[in-house]
Amino acid sequence: MDKIYKDMGFILEVDKMKSIMRMTSPVNSQRREDDAQHSWHVALSAMVLEEYCNEEIDVNKVIKMLLVHDLVEIYAGDTFCYDEEGKKDKEERELEAADKTFGLLGKEKNKKFRALWDEFEEMNTNESKFANALDRIQPMMLNYYNEGGTWKEYSIKKSEVYKRAKPIKGISDKLWKYISEIIEDSTKKGWIKEG
Amino acid sequence: MDKIYKDMGFILEVDKMKSIMRMTSPVNSQRREDDAQHSWHVALSAMVLEEYCNEEIDVNKVIKMLLVHDLVEIYAGDTFCYDEEGKKDKEERELEAADKTFGLLGKEKNKKFRALWDEFEEMNTNESKFANALDRIQPMMLNYYNEGGTWKEYSIKKSEVYKRAKPIKGISDKLWKYISEIIEDSTKKGWIKEG
Repeated sequence: MDKIYKDMGFILEVDKMKSIMRMTSPVNSQRREDDAQHSWHVALSAMVLEEYCNEEIDVNKVIKMLLVHDLVEIYAGDTFCYDEEGKKDKEERELEAADKTFGLLGKEKNKKFRALWDEFEEMNTNESKFANALDRIQPMMLNYYNEGGTWKEYSIKKSEVYKRAKPIKGISDKLWKYISEIIEDSTKKGWIKEG
Repeated sequence: MDKIYKDMGFILEVDKMKSIMRMTSPVNSQRREDDAQHSWHVALSAMVLEEYCNEEIDVNKVIKMLLVHDLVEIYAGDTFCYDEEGKKDKEERELEAADKTFGLLGKEKNKKFRALWDEFEEMNTNESKFANALDRIQPMMLNYYNEGGTWKEYSIKKSEVYKRAKPIKGISDKLWKYISEIIEDSTKKGWIKEG
């Protein structure tokens, strides 16, 4: 098979991201957001927020990482970030899904895409730390402008939100200040539970 | 106002892309696709299809262009690519919307984002030609796997589809071959009208 048909098969397969639903909703929306929308939103936010990273980073790598970071959810599904039960086998499910997803590509591209996804997951480089920070800020911002969103819906506690926000702290002082204000204000408003 | 709040305001505003509906549907979907989903899909496809460009390109620029290319539709709306009437004032509507959209950003970022959008629209560079090619291939691919999709729904003629596909021709021989096969096969199947 000509390589281009394999590549096009991959592009067709990832079309399914448009129906992998997340827990968070866009602002004022009846429909929850899906992985394609979310991935676009965070990739674009990397372009806007690059300057707030504490470290010099290759923003192009951050963008690419964010474009692929949720692809495994086509087969592994979305795991709600405050679902401690679902998180237990998340890694195993996602590793298996990564083999399947990136395995649709030819050897060379499989390796390239998989390396981006691995780097994002491992969170050991400045680029992946910043990408993860953006991935965590986005749903918090949506929750805030949805008057509590999933925080309120699932009675999430402040300590849980701070735990989730933690990766932001080491990589961006300014984004950490911004998100802390949002968390504190949401707690004051009763959208996040004390504790 | 601290700059970060302005930037976050922009990120919040572009959340609206998730409800700007296009004509095309994802494969096997009841819901049409929106601009956020589409933008993600084409940006990712740039990562996959880069090698098929006839020219040496900066794929990072292509990706950034594709992430912002439809932002103006938040205010200007989506114009169906085969709607000759709607296209008449498209440029004027979109230029006005571009001032408004990118004007939400501070001076420096406004200039940077606007330059990407202008480059995409003007289609004078290899990067913007390739980005436009990907933007045209994506809905054609979805139409093909939706057994005709909007081609069939709106009785689009083969000459119209080829006119729309034309930018692909000069920038990628391989993608042109791929899309021509799809157009010919769709015509044979009766999904695209002869003529």
